[in-house]
Amino acid sequence: MARKGEHRAAIVEAAVRLFRRQGYAATGINEIAADSGAPKGSLYHYFPAGKAQIGAAAVTLAGEIVAATLGALMQEADSAADLVGLYGAKLGGWMESSHFRDGCPIATVLLEAAPADEAIAEAGRSAFSAWSTALRDALVLDGVPNERAGQLARFAIAAIEGSLIQARVGHSADAIRETTQELGQMFTSARRPIRRIGR
Amino acid sequence: MARKGEHRAAIVEAAVRLFRRQGYAATGINEIAADSGAPKGSLYHYFPAGKAQIGAAAVTLAGEIVAATLGALMQEADSAADLVGLYGAKLGGWMESSHFRDGCPIATVLLEAAPADEAIAEAGRSAFSAWSTALRDALVLDGVPNERAGQLARFAIAAIEGSLIQARVGHSADAIRETTQELGQMFTSARRPIRRIGR
Repeated sequence: MARKGEHRAAIVEAAVRLFRRQGYAATGINEIAADSGAPKGSLYHYFPAGKAQIGAAAVTLAGEIVAATLGALMQEADSAADLVGLYGAKLGGWMESSHFRDGCPIATVLLEAAPADEAIAEAGRSAFSAWSTALRDALVLDGVPNERAGQLARFAIAAIEGSLIQARVGHSADAIRETTQELGQMFTSARRPIRRIGR
Repeated sequence: MARKGEHRAAIVEAAVRLFRRQGYAATGINEIAADSGAPKGSLYHYFPAGKAQIGAAAVTLAGEIVAATLGALMQEADSAADLVGLYGAKLGGWMESSHFRDGCPIATVLLEAAPADEAIAEAGRSAFSAWSTALRDALVLDGVPNERAGQLARFAIAAIEGSLIQARVGHSADAIRETTQELGQMFTSARRPIRRIGR
């Protein structure tokens, strides 16, 4: 017998899979129920407000998965530049293995639904904030001042998001690799104060 | 009496407006016809392959409008850094005046439809390529070597695309302004060769 909450988790995981592949509007409630294997009644039980509520939960879950990935990579990385390189390699590998059918797990939903749905927009803001906080923390560990680390981290998340669109359209992970390489150089320069030669 | 092609243009313009605001899947053929004011028969006449064909034409048109905007700003700008600043101000202003309901005119369509539809993906590649070519040309005029100018220009387009998602979700143009300011600094640094003091 399914444990409490198990169906809820299966529904949200199915929503993440379907939204990232085919988008929010193109995915119906019935398809989410079928893909999750949960009985349709449990969908209405856990998400009485319907699809928008599933959308917000999917953005939140996907945001947490990415944040956890960044946290795990931080254990391996020896600098913020290294972290962004490892992250780019992982993103590129994921996209390649899905033949570029899977994109960022939240961008499509956000672009489609965020302007009209505040709960989805709020879930998106939390996700972006958690991701840039992870990069900021890595930059601060490198010795980059807090404020500058925050700016660079937000900028990096924007650049990576954009590169995922380019990769999807170009059917190639090159844009992701080039973007994270560029960011790695910025991160390395930021930790190195300019040496003033002479006086 | 409508001139030849006038209905076609009205249909594609309506599609750009609707797709950028509400996405591709959420926009039906009937809504495009109604918004355009063109008779529905002309929609089938000009786009016998249906909605995907309108999607590709909309991405192409939106790409051309952005490229023309960049071209016009290049006449005003006195450097690539200045160009990207002016462009960021314009994008932020557009988004603010739509209360963040309008986003990038092509990103949503591309994320939703590009993996499955090669004509839409191709239109997206052409648009990204035209935009980054405009920035690359500005960088080359600043004295940045061609290859480096191309890398920086592609990177900048990715970062700007990502900042548009952040702006839409955050209901604020700050992300666009911060991103284009950061890019402006990169562009300025790229034109200035590092002076070697001493030898």
